[in-house]
Formats: sequence, structure tokens, C-alpha cells
Amino acid sequence: MTEIKENPLFKHFLYPFLNPESICIFGANNEFLSTMGAMQLRNIIFGGFPKNKIFPIHPKLNEIQGLKAYKKVVDLPEIPQLALIILRPKTVPQVLEECGQKGIKNAIITSGGFREVGNVDLNKILAQIADDYDIRFIGPNCLGVYNAWYKYPEYKEISLNTMWIYATPERGNISVIAQSGTVASHIFWICREKGVKIGKSVSIGNEDNIDTVDFLDFFSKDPQTKVIGIYIEEIKRGREFIELAKRVVPEKPVIGIYAGGTEAATRSIMGHTGAIAGNDKIFESVFQDTGIISTISIKDWMYYLRTFSSGIIPNGNRLAIITDSGGCGAMMAKAAEKYGLQVPEFSEELKLKLKNYVPEVANIDNPLDLTFQFNQYNLYIKIPKLIIKSGEVDGIILYAVFGFEEILDIIKSSGGKSYEEFEISNEMLKNIYLKPIQRLAKKERVPILYIGPQGYQNPWVREFLKANIPVFELWDMPVKCFTALTKYLDFKKSLQKKLKNE
Amino acid sequence: MTEIKENPLFKHFLYPFLNPESICIFGANNEFLSTMGAMQLRNIIFGGFPKNKIFPIHPKLNEIQGLKAYKKVVDLPEIPQLALIILRPKTVPQVLEECGQKGIKNAIITSGGFREVGNVDLNKILAQIADDYDIRFIGPNCLGVYNAWYKYPEYKEISLNTMWIYATPERGNISVIAQSGTVASHIFWICREKGVKIGKSVSIGNEDNIDTVDFLDFFSKDPQTKVIGIYIEEIKRGREFIELAKRVVPEKPVIGIYAGGTEAATRSIMGHTGAIAGNDKIFESVFQDTGIISTISIKDWMYYLRTFSSGIIPNGNRLAIITDSGGCGAMMAKAAEKYGLQVPEFSEELKLKLKNYVPEVANIDNPLDLTFQFNQYNLYIKIPKLIIKSGEVDGIILYAVFGFEEILDIIKSSGGKSYEEFEISNEMLKNIYLKPIQRLAKKERVPILYIGPQGYQNPWVREFLKANIPVFELWDMPVKCFTALTKYLDFKKSLQKKLKNE
Repeated sequence: MTEIKENPLFKHFLYPFLNPESICIFGANNEFLSTMGAMQLRNIIFGGFPKNKIFPIHPKLNEIQGLKAYKKVVDLPEIPQLALIILRPKTVPQVLEECGQKGIKNAIITSGGFREVGNVDLNKILAQIADDYDIRFIGPNCLGVYNAWYKYPEYKEISLNTMWIYATPERGNISVIAQSGTVASHIFWICREKGVKIGKSVSIGNEDNIDTVDFLDFFSKDPQTKVIGIYIEEIKRGREFIELAKRVVPEKPVIGIYAGGTEAATRSIMGHTGAIAGNDKIFESVFQDTGIISTISIKDWMYYLRTFSSGIIPNGNRLAIITDSGGCGAMMAKAAEKYGLQVPEFSEELKLKLKNYVPEVANIDNPLDLTFQFNQYNLYIKIPKLIIKSGEVDGIILYAVFGFEEILDIIKSSGGKSYEEFEISNEMLKNIYLKPIQRLAKKERVPILYIGPQGYQNPWVREFLKANIPVFELWDMPVKCFTALTKYLDFKKSLQKKLKNE
Repeated sequence: MTEIKENPLFKHFLYPFLNPESICIFGANNEFLSTMGAMQLRNIIFGGFPKNKIFPIHPKLNEIQGLKAYKKVVDLPEIPQLALIILRPKTVPQVLEECGQKGIKNAIITSGGFREVGNVDLNKILAQIADDYDIRFIGPNCLGVYNAWYKYPEYKEISLNTMWIYATPERGNISVIAQSGTVASHIFWICREKGVKIGKSVSIGNEDNIDTVDFLDFFSKDPQTKVIGIYIEEIKRGREFIELAKRVVPEKPVIGIYAGGTEAATRSIMGHTGAIAGNDKIFESVFQDTGIISTISIKDWMYYLRTFSSGIIPNGNRLAIITDSGGCGAMMAKAAEKYGLQVPEFSEELKLKLKNYVPEVANIDNPLDLTFQFNQYNLYIKIPKLIIKSGEVDGIILYAVFGFEEILDIIKSSGGKSYEEFEISNEMLKNIYLKPIQRLAKKERVPILYIGPQGYQNPWVREFLKANIPVFELWDMPVKCFTALTKYLDFKKSLQKKLKNE
């Protein structure tokens, strides 16, 4: 990632929520497993936040998790830039008022128990206090923020996590806005495993004061954000959302989930954030108009984010499928055609060129089934290169059993020979096999999506993830992800057409 | 698993393919990574097959992988019960004939390069030789068999794997028949990780002599098989398949993939097994008539197999959703309703009962969002029990962050208190939390599908898998799997209705 010398967002009102100078926290103690606030404080400490800038506030305790605790916010030696409130709902108004009196301008109200359980009056009181003291707040009924780019590049090692989930994904260019803490944070374990690199994530809860539109605006201007994931139960400012999304999407792909639209889902949402969910069709058309790629599957959503995060948007929808085993090729071809992609036959010229690099018993066509194939040079470099250079396709899915650590041990234990070249290959993987072909893929805008059926624990697969190269464990998802890329392309093309006609 | 005293399949002609007394192998050597045969022999040895019953045959080598090698099959000291042939296609007929002369009756022909690349004459020659010598063979163009139940219970530790893929899943009651080696074996890594317990798997290739119908018949009679997965590119004996499937499915659920039906898929299949793939609609109606649960997603297929493998078929399609976080509840409710399931509101009586076990800020309804919840006893036992006993639903999905090993370390390092009860909980997991509620679930036929977002590497999640309890890392798949269960139920109900009317 390039360093950002002068962050244009320093003056955005949301900047201190993600990059506070100092934090006070209400509701933390030392009882980790029974208190959410304890977990939240623990995560802030664990992320490397300067300890002398964290101020726990507690009516009884003098020390919390090794930090000096204060009885009241008025006692604090300075005005914290952010207040984090995890208290019973009825005590929140008074505490927020005390924060206002101290001069605090930013708050995250984690506490639930407001309009989502019928306590509408409490909401009104909060709004009044915020108005009186010029406080902006996230929530209530939220988990707050995760920022792996905390004050970057001034601090390179601090990540701020006010949520209770203690796993964190690898830092990347994906930012998430979610009216659900599950989507904003519970996915972190899986993101970490599957290389979905989230740099910033906000759980915004009931959106009483700060909403999706605010954060969409923030992330649209944020140079560390290249892709945005949103989870919506309702949109409070519909027109603003649509207008903003129309401006954002052509620059930064947005992947959206709308969770409402059916009876039980709506009931669930009422009890979750208290929102009145709208009609599914309305949201479908909003997503279509604005170019937001939509899905109702959390897995699709995560993988789409990862796909766009690695950054190659193709020129069209023609797909080449290369495998070292036939069955998955047939299944991918079928799925591709169902999703409206093309899997064109290769030209005679290309077939002739490929012939030299393909085993005798293999059939040269698209899908290309190389059968049992351990010539890694042909598989990873020569064949994809010929296919990219032909100009006959816009994307490649490459399925192969790869990464041979496990085999090498087995072979040694069986007394076998000729494994040395593969030990070298593993070493060379990144520099020889992946980097040059990825450069070509980027230059020609022909994304290559890899599949390795050994799963995400495999050391070679982890190398792919480290290098930000899309890799999958099975063959359903890459076809879906390439389809998502072409949808985005189609949207951009239709925009350009519209602009031309205007 | 119960021991099988007298296996009724001893006399089935396919029995020696999965349980051969002895094997000879053509095409193995010591060059593991460039020769498929070497990998296949290695796997047979590694699975514990008696070494004095494996006979490598090679024109030049005297010893292969530590075993004495023979120049010709005629030299062997005994008649092997199974021949495994991995040679160039043109040499296969002569070798098969020599096998016939020796008296070998069963062969697996791994070699590709027959009708799938236009060599139709070779096929005819093979058929003639098989006819002349009463040989039955699997293939050509296949990987052969995997049998984790090799001669069980006589041998308890041997698993026979003639395929080149060296990972093997945990032994279970799922059997697979696939016209694709990818589906029959490449999935083994993922199956191992996700607890898809396959006991037997056959890659049957071009089906020149033995076909899907033969193995469907075999597995239908096999007491170790409770669920069957099939992957189809064509059906050679359509009528027999349909008639047999109609008899099998009511006893043993069958999950099917049909890979043909689109242009590129058909082209791919031509080059893969040489089959002429049929119309998608025909297969759809075959699957529907026979009650085969069908999908074109490999992931769905694997998870459906796992779901049926754990064995509870519900009484209806009413689903309860319990979570400790709201967003995933809303998404599951939406998906459930899209798939035609019911997510009914709980009765006032049930809500009243639940009230004692649910945090104050939570909304009591279905989906039930418990919010932040570390009372494991309520979560895993009390609440599911009340819901099952109410009779108001037919299945439960329970989402919770569980397994606290990771947290415990973190808390210790933060100097926190009160984690002891959770260390005990981990110990008690299987006996206190899972076993009693699973007994109730089985008795009342209300399957509970668990979701743990920490992923399949989490120690607690692995405990679930060991106990054969369905557990998922995200929330798309459990809703799909419960839907598959209800589809099977609907099919069985429609059959009973039909029988009554007859």
C-alpha cells in the first residue's frame, strides 16, 4: 500500500470515530465472558491503542484491565475524542449528557434496548441531548468500529477494534458498513482464513444519528478504501443514498445485501434494529439503478468483496476454463452458461499453439482438461499466457491440485525419487509462477481465478492469498465471482453509453 | 457403527472391486510426481493393504516402492483378484488380454485416451476381450475406488484407495458414484475438513462395462451406506436407472449432480468421458420423479450429503432460528421464506416460557435474537429444549459464537477473571451440552443445525463434527440443507399418499 501523506479525510466529521486521539469507555470491567464491554475494552488494548489515552469509567472499580479507572467522566484529566457506551439503556441518556457537559463530541452507543424493543421515548431523549451538546453518535444497538488503518501512516501497527469479536482480518482495501454486528464483525474469523482483507468496518446499529449514507460518503473519499460492502435493513435517507451511490459505484464497486423483504425477515429486523423493512422489489431496483452488486448470500458477499479487492475488471464476459480434471470443468461450464457468460471454443490457431503444452490424452478445447498434470510451468505460465495473448477470452479460471508439501513428505516416507524439482517449485512459486503471469493478467485485464481443492490451510494456497490473488477451494464460487465482475463491467459500459448520448 | 456379521454383499459381482484379496498394478514406478500410477500404488500401500498381496508389474524394474516387481502378469505366484491398469491407451488391450489369460476377472482401467478423444475402435477391442475372458472392468478413464470399509470388520484399519489423490475423508456412511474423478476424489481434502464422512467412493469414468446403475444397486444393498451421492454426465441405461432409483431413494437419500445440459458443458463432457449429454429438462424430471435431491453446486452437494448422513429427517418445514446476533437471523429468515420454508411466530405460551432464559434487551420471537449471550446452558440446552417440546417447529438453526479456547488465552493474558467455568464448559461440551439435546432432537425428529463463525479449525467446531452433528461456518448453507431435508420429506409423503390411493 502506498503511504498517504495528507489524508483528505482529516476534516470529515467521521474521521475521529475511526481515528480518535483518546477514548473513554463506560461499561467495561474485568468480567470478560459475561460482559460485552470488558471484551470491547480488551480488544482496544490488544490492538495497540496508547494505554494512556484509554479512560475506563466505572462507579466502583479503581482499576480495569490494568488501566486506571475513573468514577465519572467529569473526573477525566482531558476531553476524550470518543466515548464508548455499553450500559443498560435507561442509564445511557444521563451518561451521554455528562459526556456533553465534559465537551465530548463523538460517541458510540453499543447498548441495545431502544426502539427495537419498543423503547421509542428513550430514542427521543438521546436525540435531544445530542442536539443540545452537538454530539454525533453511532448506534445505539451497534458494535462500533474496526479500523486496521488507524492514523496510518503515522501509526503503522495500531488497529482499533471497539467490537467484542476478538478475531481480526488482514488489513486490506475493503470497507464495510453494516446495520448488523454479525456482518460487521462475526465474519472476521472466516475473512482471516479466506483472505478477505477488510481494512475498516462499522457496525452502525439503529442509525439514530449517523447512518449508512454518512459512511458511504466517508469511504467514497477514503484513499484506503477501494471496495465497499454494505448490509442494509432499511435506508432512512433514500434519495441521498441513491444519488450518492450513483456517484460512488463507478469509482468503487459496492456489494450490497438487503436483508428485508419477507415476512419473518421483516419481523426479525423489527426486533433487531427496529427498522421497518421495505419491499424487496424496491431494493432490487435501487441496487440495479445504482450499479450495486447485490446478493442475499453472506458467502457470495464476502467473495465478491475479495474479488473486487484484487482489482482486475475484465473487458468482457468470455471465460476460459483450464483444469487438471474434467468433472469440475463441465460443472463450471454449465454454471457459466447459466449465469450468461460465454465459454467460447478456442480458435484452431490457439489450439495448435496449445498442443505442445498439453498431454497427448487430453482434449484441446474450452474447457481445457489437462488430465493428470504435474508440469507446473505449462499449467501456471505457458498455457494461461497463450490464452491471454490470444485475445479470445476475458477471464480464466484455473483449477489444479497444487502445493506439494503434503505429497513431498509422503513420497519421502515411501522412499520415492525426483521430488527435488518440486521443492524448488514451492520456493519459486511467488516469483516465477505467479508474479509474471499476474502482471500480464493486469496489463491485459484478464483476471485469473485459481482453484486449489486442498483448502485454505494449504501453504501454497496461503501464498496466493498473501499475494492478493483470488484462490478458491471449490469450483462454484469462481464462476459466480467472474460473473459479478462482468456485471460491474456491464454497468460501467451502460453508464458510458448514457453519458455519450447526453 | 455396528459390526456387520454377515455381509449380504459378499456375492455381489462388485464386492471384489472394493474388497479385493490381492491387486496387481500396471504402470506404477518410483517417479511419484510425474506418474499417476506411482501415486496410486503409493496410496494403496499407505492405506495398509497387505504388502504381500500387491503385485506391481513392470517390464524393466525389479522393485517398485519397496515391493518386488514382476515382468509380466503370467509370472505372478497367484491370480490377483483385481488388476489396476494405468498405461498408454494403445497398450491396454494386450495387457487386459494377458490378465484374462492369467484368470483375472476384475479390472480397473485408469488410462484415458479412448472414446473421449475419438479412439472408438479401442473401446470395441476392450469389450471383445472382456467378453472372451469374462472380465468385468471399471473405466476406462477413471480413478477407481476408495473404500474406507475394506473387508470390515475383518480388517478395521485398512482403507483401499486406488486413486491418486492422497487425502482421505473420515470414514462414514456416505457412498459416492461419479463419472468424474474430481467429484469422486479431489473433494477429499474439503470433506476431511468439513466432516463430510465418505466411506466409499467410485470414479467410474467412461462406463464401458460397469456403470452407475451397477453401483447404485450395490450401494442400495450395502449396510454401510446410508446416503448416496451421484455425479452424472450421461445415463446409459435410463429405464433401469429410473426404476432402481425409485426403489432406492425412499430407503436411502440420493443427492445428484447432472453436469450436462448447456453447450460448453456438453462440449466439455464429450472431451471428458465421451458421453453425449442430454437435455437438462429431462434430467430435472428424472430427478424429480425418483426423489433424487439435485443441485449443480458442488458445495451444496457435499453439504446435503453431510446433512442426510447425520440422519434426522424432520416432520415438516417449520423452522426456528436462534442466534446471538440479529443480522444473520434476518438473512436466514429471508432465505428460508424464499426457499418455501415457514418461520412461524412463537405462541404466547412459548414466549412466556422462553422469557426466563433470554436477556432483558432481547426480543422474544422467531427468529430469536439473544443478543450478546454467554449463558451456554440456556443457549445450548434450555432454549432448544423448550422450542422442541413446544411442537411448534420441525427444525432449529442455532447460530452462536462458541468454543472459547481462543478467548481464554486472550483473557488470561489480559489478567482477567472468571473464566474457569468456561474451561469446564469446554470439557463438558460433548456430554452435557450436545448429547442430551441431540437425543431429544432425534427422538422428536427436530434436527438442530449449528453455526459457529469461528470456522472449521475451531476446536469446539471439530467436536461437533466428530459427534456427527451438523455444524456450519456461515449461515447460507444450513437454511439450504434444512430445505433439502424437507424436500426429501415431501417426496416420501407423496409416495405414501400414492401407495394409499393404489
